[in-house]
Amino acid sequence: MSTYSRRTFIEQMGWGLGAAVTLPSLVSMTPERANVQDKQRLNIALCGLGRYANVLKGGLAASQYCRLAGIVTGTPAKAAEWQRAYGIPDKNSYTYQTFDQLSRNPDIDLVYITLPNGLHKEYVLRAAKAGKHVIVEKPMAFTEQDCREMIDACQKAGVQLAVGYRLHYDPHHIELKRLGQDKIFGQVRLMEASLGYRLEGISPDDWHLNKALAGGGPLMNLGVYCVQSGRYVLGEEPVAVTAQIGPVTMPALFKEVEENITWQLYFPSGAICTSSSTSNCNVDRFFASADEGYFELEPALSYGPFKGRTSRAAFNFPVVNQQAAQLDDIAQHILANKPLPVHISGEEGRKDMRVIEAIYRAAHTGRKITLA
Amino acid sequence: MSTYSRRTFIEQMGWGLGAAVTLPSLVSMTPERANVQDKQRLNIALCGLGRYANVLKGGLAASQYCRLAGIVTGTPAKAAEWQRAYGIPDKNSYTYQTFDQLSRNPDIDLVYITLPNGLHKEYVLRAAKAGKHVIVEKPMAFTEQDCREMIDACQKAGVQLAVGYRLHYDPHHIELKRLGQDKIFGQVRLMEASLGYRLEGISPDDWHLNKALAGGGPLMNLGVYCVQSGRYVLGEEPVAVTAQIGPVTMPALFKEVEENITWQLYFPSGAICTSSSTSNCNVDRFFASADEGYFELEPALSYGPFKGRTSRAAFNFPVVNQQAAQLDDIAQHILANKPLPVHISGEEGRKDMRVIEAIYRAAHTGRKITLA
Repeated sequence: MSTYSRRTFIEQMGWGLGAAVTLPSLVSMTPERANVQDKQRLNIALCGLGRYANVLKGGLAASQYCRLAGIVTGTPAKAAEWQRAYGIPDKNSYTYQTFDQLSRNPDIDLVYITLPNGLHKEYVLRAAKAGKHVIVEKPMAFTEQDCREMIDACQKAGVQLAVGYRLHYDPHHIELKRLGQDKIFGQVRLMEASLGYRLEGISPDDWHLNKALAGGGPLMNLGVYCVQSGRYVLGEEPVAVTAQIGPVTMPALFKEVEENITWQLYFPSGAICTSSSTSNCNVDRFFASADEGYFELEPALSYGPFKGRTSRAAFNFPVVNQQAAQLDDIAQHILANKPLPVHISGEEGRKDMRVIEAIYRAAHTGRKITLA
Repeated sequence: MSTYSRRTFIEQMGWGLGAAVTLPSLVSMTPERANVQDKQRLNIALCGLGRYANVLKGGLAASQYCRLAGIVTGTPAKAAEWQRAYGIPDKNSYTYQTFDQLSRNPDIDLVYITLPNGLHKEYVLRAAKAGKHVIVEKPMAFTEQDCREMIDACQKAGVQLAVGYRLHYDPHHIELKRLGQDKIFGQVRLMEASLGYRLEGISPDDWHLNKALAGGGPLMNLGVYCVQSGRYVLGEEPVAVTAQIGPVTMPALFKEVEENITWQLYFPSGAICTSSSTSNCNVDRFFASADEGYFELEPALSYGPFKGRTSRAAFNFPVVNQQAAQLDDIAQHILANKPLPVHISGEEGRKDMRVIEAIYRAAHTGRKITLA
């Protein structure tokens, strides 16, 4: 409870934001860095200093409401390097063995977990136990049941739980949601959403190829964005799923997880979303066709910059730092002691994981899986 | 045999074209209309004066080597209108009852069959029996076995058989084939090819909704282009197929044929092609991702004009009249007494139908269908 409650004073002192934190206004604020006092900054510890932590560095540097205050790593050389680069004191530098001592450190408000997928659940539970708010990278966990346990643990500990859903902070995706959910072109009927990266040259020891650490192949790591875009463009949850495991063209690498996978989501309105996610080639596109027109992005689901258009006109939105916008919105909510928006919450992660579980079940059984 | 042999004299007299009729040169010839003598024109009878016959009118008008010389229709008013518009004498105007009398008409060289799909086989057999060359619109028939019978009948009659595969004459598609088959970006791994039109407002009596006349829904009428593009970009035949019948959102119309369908083709190289074909929304796109880049068209599979690009640059090809280019290439081959290119032949139609049959079987059984 400590950290969560500790922040209520900020709101009481009038430093909090207004109730309505609209995403576009946040986005437009990001480029001009306001003079935010350190007391209004959320102190973040990055847990797992791998590839995505290096992407987040840029987001933290560009953020107005966050400060990189701590690290968790099992590699002493990385600890030394990050401490030096960011002026992180020894007392804010943890290993996986000392992680639980975070509970005694009032200088860390939130732990951002960028560990391999298979460690997400354990470290969310440990962060909650330490009384820290948590952002966990996607995929949130391996099963919907895991997600439920993580949500429950955070609720009981009185800390907030977010999933690193950066796309909700990109104005192109905010527009996709508006076009779909507000039926600007009428009812959406068909979506095509695919994301893939060619992993040639990857080490056979990379954790993304290890079932226990990755939980699966590109569906887990990339397909989650395709699933989610279909869900949020419609504002609906799928009622059934079909899926197909694709061929293996790099057998030396893909011994444990799928190399590529295709699937189809069926929504209550009759709309469908078809997707591919692959580790053997690059693909990054989203398309939606509705009764009176279409809209699409390409690139669509990566870090951008995105390019979009509708059947009427090209998109004209600014390029934003997705991670900075995400971090600032989360920080502003937590600093103001307000619940996080549901679309980046653990609950959203649970809904994605429910679909991903069904996709794997459909792919492995060859059957259409109905979602109750 | 009569018509086929009758044309050999043209070649012997030196009017024939050189052996190598390359498509790009043909395409570039089309805009400048050469002064082609009437003796060098192929006399075509259009059989079935529906929607596509009206599209072909433009192609015939723009062609250099074809003349609209006859018609076959069951509607006296249409016969009168077309005869008046194109100066077609009564002796070249047929009904379905008098069709077989074409055998006694030396002024018709070829019958272009634009009847509903369910009549394709019957009229190809009757045209062959009448000793006329034939172009039949896609889908060639309903089954691979039907295609075989049609091919055999034409071979025995000594007439040539083409399927109305207009896309082979569009420079954008000629380029797709080159990029894929010549591996300009390395091995293609993933293709996404979809084509659909929203049929809202269509009469419930339209033959496209009638199983006996259409043979199926959008897979038969539109999906054939998706199947074919996957095949010709790779230059391979699929070894397995999975497919899913989509939801019905217009139950008053789609009682007999599918409203939408999705499928996945698996090729020997390990490449896959995923597709949607639908009658409930507009979609018209092709994408291919290879080891070292991608290429795509959107619009991609309709009558154009197409817009394409690769990961390096935008396409810059002229807009062509697909139908005129198609008609002129077919006419030049027949006038020169040369066999038609295999990629627009009945054999090509048979290969597509083999895949389409497997797609329906996969969709209806829920199983992955292996193609021997």
